Amino acid sequence: MEVNRLKLSAISFLLIAAIGFGQQKVPFQNGIPVAPQGLAGHKLPNLPITYDTAEGQKIRVAAVTRSLEYPFCLAFLPDGSMLVTERAGRLRIIRNGVLDPKPVAGTPASFWSGDSGLPGAVHGYMDVALHPRFAENGFIYLVYNKAVDEKKHVVSLARGHWDGHGLTDVRDIYTLDQAGTSRMAFARDGTIFMATTGMDPQDPNTLGGKILRLNDDGTIPKDNPFVGQPGHKPEVYALGIRSSLGLAMHPGTGEMWENENGPNGGDEINILKPGKNYGWPLVSYGRSYPGPWQVSPPGHGGFEPPVVIWVPAIAVSGMAFYTGDKLPKWKGDVFVGSLRTGEIPGTGHLERILFNEKMEELRRESLLTDFRQRIRDVRQGPDGLLYLLTDEKEGAVLRIEPAQ
Amino acid sequence: MEVNRLKLSAISFLLIAAIGFGQQKVPFQNGIPVAPQGLAGHKLPNLPITYDTAEGQKIRVAAVTRSLEYPFCLAFLPDGSMLVTERAGRLRIIRNGVLDPKPVAGTPASFWSGDSGLPGAVHGYMDVALHPRFAENGFIYLVYNKAVDEKKHVVSLARGHWDGHGLTDVRDIYTLDQAGTSRMAFARDGTIFMATTGMDPQDPNTLGGKILRLNDDGTIPKDNPFVGQPGHKPEVYALGIRSSLGLAMHPGTGEMWENENGPNGGDEINILKPGKNYGWPLVSYGRSYPGPWQVSPPGHGGFEPPVVIWVPAIAVSGMAFYTGDKLPKWKGDVFVGSLRTGEIPGTGHLERILFNEKMEELRRESLLTDFRQRIRDVRQGPDGLLYLLTDEKEGAVLRIEPAQ
Repeated sequence: MEVNRLKLSAISFLLIAAIGFGQQKVPFQNGIPVAPQGLAGHKLPNLPITYDTAEGQKIRVAAVTRSLEYPFCLAFLPDGSMLVTERAGRLRIIRNGVLDPKPVAGTPASFWSGDSGLPGAVHGYMDVALHPRFAENGFIYLVYNKAVDEKKHVVSLARGHWDGHGLTDVRDIYTLDQAGTSRMAFARDGTIFMATTGMDPQDPNTLGGKILRLNDDGTIPKDNPFVGQPGHKPEVYALGIRSSLGLAMHPGTGEMWENENGPNGGDEINILKPGKNYGWPLVSYGRSYPGPWQVSPPGHGGFEPPVVIWVPAIAVSGMAFYTGDKLPKWKGDVFVGSLRTGEIPGTGHLERILFNEKMEELRRESLLTDFRQRIRDVRQGPDGLLYLLTDEKEGAVLRIEPAQ
Repeated sequence: MEVNRLKLSAISFLLIAAIGFGQQKVPFQNGIPVAPQGLAGHKLPNLPITYDTAEGQKIRVAAVTRSLEYPFCLAFLPDGSMLVTERAGRLRIIRNGVLDPKPVAGTPASFWSGDSGLPGAVHGYMDVALHPRFAENGFIYLVYNKAVDEKKHVVSLARGHWDGHGLTDVRDIYTLDQAGTSRMAFARDGTIFMATTGMDPQDPNTLGGKILRLNDDGTIPKDNPFVGQPGHKPEVYALGIRSSLGLAMHPGTGEMWENENGPNGGDEINILKPGKNYGWPLVSYGRSYPGPWQVSPPGHGGFEPPVVIWVPAIAVSGMAFYTGDKLPKWKGDVFVGSLRTGEIPGTGHLERILFNEKMEELRRESLLTDFRQRIRDVRQGPDGLLYLLTDEKEGAVLRIEPAQ
């Protein structure tokens, strides 16, 4: 009988299974498991490439330029020229699709800790934005880290005047007491939202891990939620923020949407409301890096819940609402850059999120995963197309346009 | 001055932005948004293909066969032959890498609702498993849906005897009062765990949405947690399960791990404990299909928390612990089949999850995403390699082996 013939090999198989369970050893550094590097550092493929997407939106992806170094933020001048910050502390300009080899003149000196990519790395330049009434006043805003002395660096918001070729009259209009990463965006009322990283996100008397709200001259709006409250910084608009790399105003409601990076899992999109607490580090959907949940069970009880969560983390970055007509299947969708796809360092993609009319998520889609590029920013151009920045040493501006 | 020249185009851009925010209309069917089909139905590429993976484990993926129709579950005979169930209600055998063109004889008649893939579809055959002492008793178990009459189908657990070529003496040893999907797995003590779908997962007096525990002859173990409790089915081991497609015994602790599909987000891996409630539909990390969170804020308060969560959903399916030596960088990791990658129907991948020694997640990796194949099952072979089933009309057995 067949069963008897099989007995010996079956027993040896069971013996092997009974020996025990070897869990792979993972090296740690400063309490964080050392990330594998096997798949980092992919070259952007030759472009354009055409893709089908889930919604039936056929797209073609083209490169505007491939000659940027770790670009961080993209802003459009009204004529379609692009201003791009580079982490090393340069402002670049692309006119008629051609990158000017020389950085824009007149910009402030910055401090950059280099391209290590390690947590805590200090970027030189971060965001650049035009004043909502740029056509009238020509104001351009820049968020950057500057050296106070040899030991101390701080985040500063500078404002300058665009003279058609470079910045003039640049001055710091608001400066934090700490270094870190910061995004900024103009709200509909002309105020500036800044998202900060840093210590003590639950302490309303510090500026780390907060959403700040400023006037367009760097002063503090009188209607900020904590103005006049002892023990509260008046520029604080919201608390409990972990590490935000995306701010975008909802084009319908005017509310400011913010995304932020969880620890090991638990990336979020939040809708910012005055004086609210978004819970970090008391609540999270992620695990701490050594393994235990940040809070068990993972949740958001007692704090403002997010509208979108990611577990595992995709390392969310720049964010935009698509309102154009050129990519009609994507109209109304939210796009978020990812610096990490499938938890693999050195990869990334573009995330598309489809909402219902109440802005509750229906589904999402990972785009351009095969590029294995970190996507740092996503913006809609005045031409109704989508533009991306790849956060790479040979960084690119990518354009997504409709294909047949 | 440049600013003046730009004024007209800037104003027209602002006007466009001010018109309002058009949210894309999404069609619904039975309260569920109609999924896009633009990317479904991809052909498996020519194999073998070699990949680098994040952990530095180089792998080669080969096809053992491509001639299965919607295979569901894979089990190894001690000599390395493979038994594979097909959803249409066939048991197939692969000997020495060759698929027998004829189904295994002696298996029971089943009911299959066809290959619509719609929610609520009834599979013919689901799981197949060998008795832990198969070498002695030759018992093979089969989970399937059978027709009671023209209107009613129920899940049944059958046991038969392997005679080297087919099954003999097959009989139903346990039958549910409902149709649905079910996984089964043997625990270390020789009892059988079955995960059921269906209504009323919170009602301990019904069999839907539960984990059941049975003796190897289909009777109910006397030490089940609810034995003797009025209003409780004695075969119920745990409650509050949504839709489980994966059961695997932890090779170190002997605990049974279960994965289950959330609604729109909120897939989970749970560790099953006697009498515990895993919370569906009262708690979840997912949204309901029309958009609102299943519970707001999403969480698991008051119920057993999962050890792994996915948001968005990846449509988790078969699950295995890898304990072999052939793929040393993966030793101790958990592998889960995905029927949906990036929320795109008709795609899928293999998910690898790396834990610390306390079995807390450190990170995960999405593998074989470029295949765009639904992965229904993953098993370790007696040769220490990993084997996958693709849930496709032209379904395959894939083998993952080390590459140089």
